[in-house]
Amino acid sequence: MRTQVAIIGAGPSGLLLGQLLHHQGIDTVILEHRTPEYVLSRIRAGVLEQGMVDLLREAKAGERMDREGDVHEGVNISFNDKLHHIDFVKYAKGQTVMVYGQTEVTQDLMDARKREGGVSLYEAENVQLHDFYTDKPRVTFTRNGEEVELHCDYIAGCDGFHGVSRQSAPKNEIRTFERVYPFGWLGILSETPPVNDELIYAHHERGFALCSQRNAMLSRYYVQVSLDDKVEDWSDERFWEELKRRIPAAAAERLVTGPSIEKSIAPLRSFVTEPMRYGRMFLVGDAAHIVPPTGAKGLNLAASDVSTLYRILVKVYQDGRTDLLEKYSEIVLRRIWKAERFSWLMTNMLHKFSDDPFAQRMQLAELDYYTSSEVGLASIAENYVGLPYEAIE
Amino acid sequence: MRTQVAIIGAGPSGLLLGQLLHHQGIDTVILEHRTPEYVLSRIRAGVLEQGMVDLLREAKAGERMDREGDVHEGVNISFNDKLHHIDFVKYAKGQTVMVYGQTEVTQDLMDARKREGGVSLYEAENVQLHDFYTDKPRVTFTRNGEEVELHCDYIAGCDGFHGVSRQSAPKNEIRTFERVYPFGWLGILSETPPVNDELIYAHHERGFALCSQRNAMLSRYYVQVSLDDKVEDWSDERFWEELKRRIPAAAAERLVTGPSIEKSIAPLRSFVTEPMRYGRMFLVGDAAHIVPPTGAKGLNLAASDVSTLYRILVKVYQDGRTDLLEKYSEIVLRRIWKAERFSWLMTNMLHKFSDDPFAQRMQLAELDYYTSSEVGLASIAENYVGLPYEAIE
Repeated sequence: MRTQVAIIGAGPSGLLLGQLLHHQGIDTVILEHRTPEYVLSRIRAGVLEQGMVDLLREAKAGERMDREGDVHEGVNISFNDKLHHIDFVKYAKGQTVMVYGQTEVTQDLMDARKREGGVSLYEAENVQLHDFYTDKPRVTFTRNGEEVELHCDYIAGCDGFHGVSRQSAPKNEIRTFERVYPFGWLGILSETPPVNDELIYAHHERGFALCSQRNAMLSRYYVQVSLDDKVEDWSDERFWEELKRRIPAAAAERLVTGPSIEKSIAPLRSFVTEPMRYGRMFLVGDAAHIVPPTGAKGLNLAASDVSTLYRILVKVYQDGRTDLLEKYSEIVLRRIWKAERFSWLMTNMLHKFSDDPFAQRMQLAELDYYTSSEVGLASIAENYVGLPYEAIE
Repeated sequence: MRTQVAIIGAGPSGLLLGQLLHHQGIDTVILEHRTPEYVLSRIRAGVLEQGMVDLLREAKAGERMDREGDVHEGVNISFNDKLHHIDFVKYAKGQTVMVYGQTEVTQDLMDARKREGGVSLYEAENVQLHDFYTDKPRVTFTRNGEEVELHCDYIAGCDGFHGVSRQSAPKNEIRTFERVYPFGWLGILSETPPVNDELIYAHHERGFALCSQRNAMLSRYYVQVSLDDKVEDWSDERFWEELKRRIPAAAAERLVTGPSIEKSIAPLRSFVTEPMRYGRMFLVGDAAHIVPPTGAKGLNLAASDVSTLYRILVKVYQDGRTDLLEKYSEIVLRRIWKAERFSWLMTNMLHKFSDDPFAQRMQLAELDYYTSSEVGLASIAENYVGLPYEAIE
């Protein structure tokens, strides 16, 4: 079996890369060790930067997003019972974000790939990457009891944090950077109208809370919890009560509660792998980096990696610009570190960390600066809508 | 003995407040437990924000500053051997800073006070503040062996971090917030031409360095050192060698070295007192708060406290607006915490803290963001030239 680019992982990154390359006449095979249903069952982010929105349109998978997605022209930060609006139109030169769930993005990309006859092999077991430091990389795997060998020019590792791609990088080449935060996010999904038409990031002395939404009758809310907490500790009643205490009273009053249809606790982590190229194997998205969700950068950062790798591969196949392959890592890491910075800043500013009174006052000073200075507002806005994609030269 | 406002401390804050009040016909007496020579011997900051420059002019003590001081239209941050210029004219709406030493400011204010017949009592020993929760506050002290009682309407505590004013606040009223940093600054003064016409704040893996100046033939340089280091450990040769390693090579090459005429190590501290009003006693400047020197905010923050207290006292004496006295603390603390934030940010971003690789990469991401984004540049610029003084209403 042979393809030009072997893509490991059929999440949104792998699918998006596959679509973009396909439209440039570059052949791909996507390998995924889960089933399509499993991939679609993962509830994740729902805020898309302008750059990712454009990329989905370019991939011809943006039609339903444009129809059903919700354009947000701002975001809110609350503290001391007050809501502070950050107006993207004013502070981010008119850029906006699109609220559209990751599950929907994945579904649309899957449908597009199927429609256009792209090859996605699900339930591929024991995937192994070989010879990617030569010009004849291979991927081996088992499917339906059969051992398969896939020959390719390049391997794109889009298989997430727990995937095989990063684990295949030579131990003496790879370097990782990590911060684990001393709390988690308890999230629920409920079929209720969102409390607010835009997101609310709430700082409160009891801990962080986030009000977000998927659509007019589907809300997603989070509260910061201890890492020792278990989902069973949190009845729906307890969750709603705690959420109400952490958001401004005016918002709490109009909050519509209802049964949760999903409830889970996720830890928060900052993680970066350097480099992101190993010969002809390229790490993309969560396979190389994780951000804490404060700031909604995870999926968007995967999209900017995809954009860069896609643009480089097109130049490689169309213009023979193989020199660009060596720049992939440097190009994507510069933007990744800035998104890591923003996610870390938002996490540090909004969560309850410790009882250190100086640190608490510093959080309030940060919140005051970022919500009262025109420059501070512009700084949150430009990072939230997404810093520009790096140029490829 | 009687006055309207008893000012404790004849440093720049006390002298500036005295001058400003004097010109509005409000009588002051300044008490200082040191000699004038001692006060003038303290080598401190030398970067004045626009707000402080305007205030010195208003105090009729700005003539020599305007003649001899050096207007800086930008500042530089270096890392990875590159100098990044932050242009205030472009990024801070044309505001600038004035490089003019604190010693000179103090001298000019002393001269002005003497010229205008203001009363400054030096070598006042055993200063004690009394009855400031009544409408008849008193200050007692010993001078030339004589016990003196000074009756007043208000007490302004401008006597610095180690002064008696903060220590006189009731223990059950006062709250302090503090962070001590795990390093110090070794500073030297040398009669050499400055290496650069503007300041350079240098981030380096060996530690922070700062190139600053007092005038065309007087330079002030600093390097971050361990708190265990002693001045005796640092010969001039060792200092210059270390400084050269931490600044960009192009700057190191043109650095003119020479004998130090002053050399000292200072610790770095963030410290804030809340509240800053205790009845009729008001804390001003270092008596209430300390910033680490990265960002040059210490003296400037004292000046903005002086400005607020001055404007309030004028309204009290001229319009009977005693209600404003209760707002002093809230008004000044809002700006203080933002300056504390900026000083903490600059300190965190520029110094070597630990060997934690994630934290090191985060510093580089901060430096990259703040020197490459227009909004990031504007954020450093607006904070460095000084956020606007808070309004009094």
